[in-house]
Amino acid sequence: MKKVEHIAIAVKSLAKSVPLFEKLLNTPCYKTEKIESERVTASFFKTGETKIELLEGMDETGHIARFIEKVGEGMHHIAFEVDDIKAEMKRLMEAGFLLLSGEPKKGADNKLICFLHPRDTNGVLIELCQEIKE
Amino acid sequence: MKKVEHIAIAVKSLAKSVPLFEKLLNTPCYKTEKIESERVTASFFKTGETKIELLEGMDETGHIARFIEKVGEGMHHIAFEVDDIKAEMKRLMEAGFLLLSGEPKKGADNKLICFLHPRDTNGVLIELCQEIKE
Repeated sequence: MKKVEHIAIAVKSLAKSVPLFEKLLNTPCYKTEKIESERVTASFFKTGETKIELLEGMDETGHIARFIEKVGEGMHHIAFEVDDIKAEMKRLMEAGFLLLSGEPKKGADNKLICFLHPRDTNGVLIELCQEIKE
Repeated sequence: MKKVEHIAIAVKSLAKSVPLFEKLLNTPCYKTEKIESERVTASFFKTGETKIELLEGMDETGHIARFIEKVGEGMHHIAFEVDDIKAEMKRLMEAGFLLLSGEPKKGADNKLICFLHPRDTNGVLIELCQEIKE
């Protein structure tokens, strides 16, 4: 794992939370992106080499809404950047971790991504991500 | 905020979770420290410029135990490094955030720290920290 690429935070309303995090982090939100495949809208902030990503669900019954209903707004997952996502998926699978997809998926922000099941990681939802080089 | 200094994860047992995170992060735990003032034991891992900090409570009724009882093991807080913690506390207080202490406290890993109340930050417990220069 090279670095913490981003920390994702589930929020009810980007309209409310983006100005809040701009004040908190003392830096402007530099991008908002709709991720249709995940049915979320994400707003991004930069702090050092790590992004803070606020996630608002597009659907009232989607996974972000269900997460907020269960545990409230708050930290949703940590994403680690890797050089070779397929090699890292293989390494982790062989080490006994359960992956949530057999192949990397296209994620936000021009990345290939894969999630690990939080049952194996002390309840922390972990994402692996690798920049797509074009 | 200069960077994400660490991400803290509440765990029931460092004896179980340290080997798990060594496998997950593919890096050894480089330090375990008892933080008497917080009644926790912390184990540290390095990934890029950010540390992953596993927290085990020393007491069965302490704040880590209560956190785990309420929401289970998982992400506990995010710590941001700042250059001047007193100036940052003043800035945030004036911006309407509630601080959990009026003065910086001595934290783990040779830091001055201050927490923000999560009611103002979308449920995310935020720590500010500044390295103590000696």
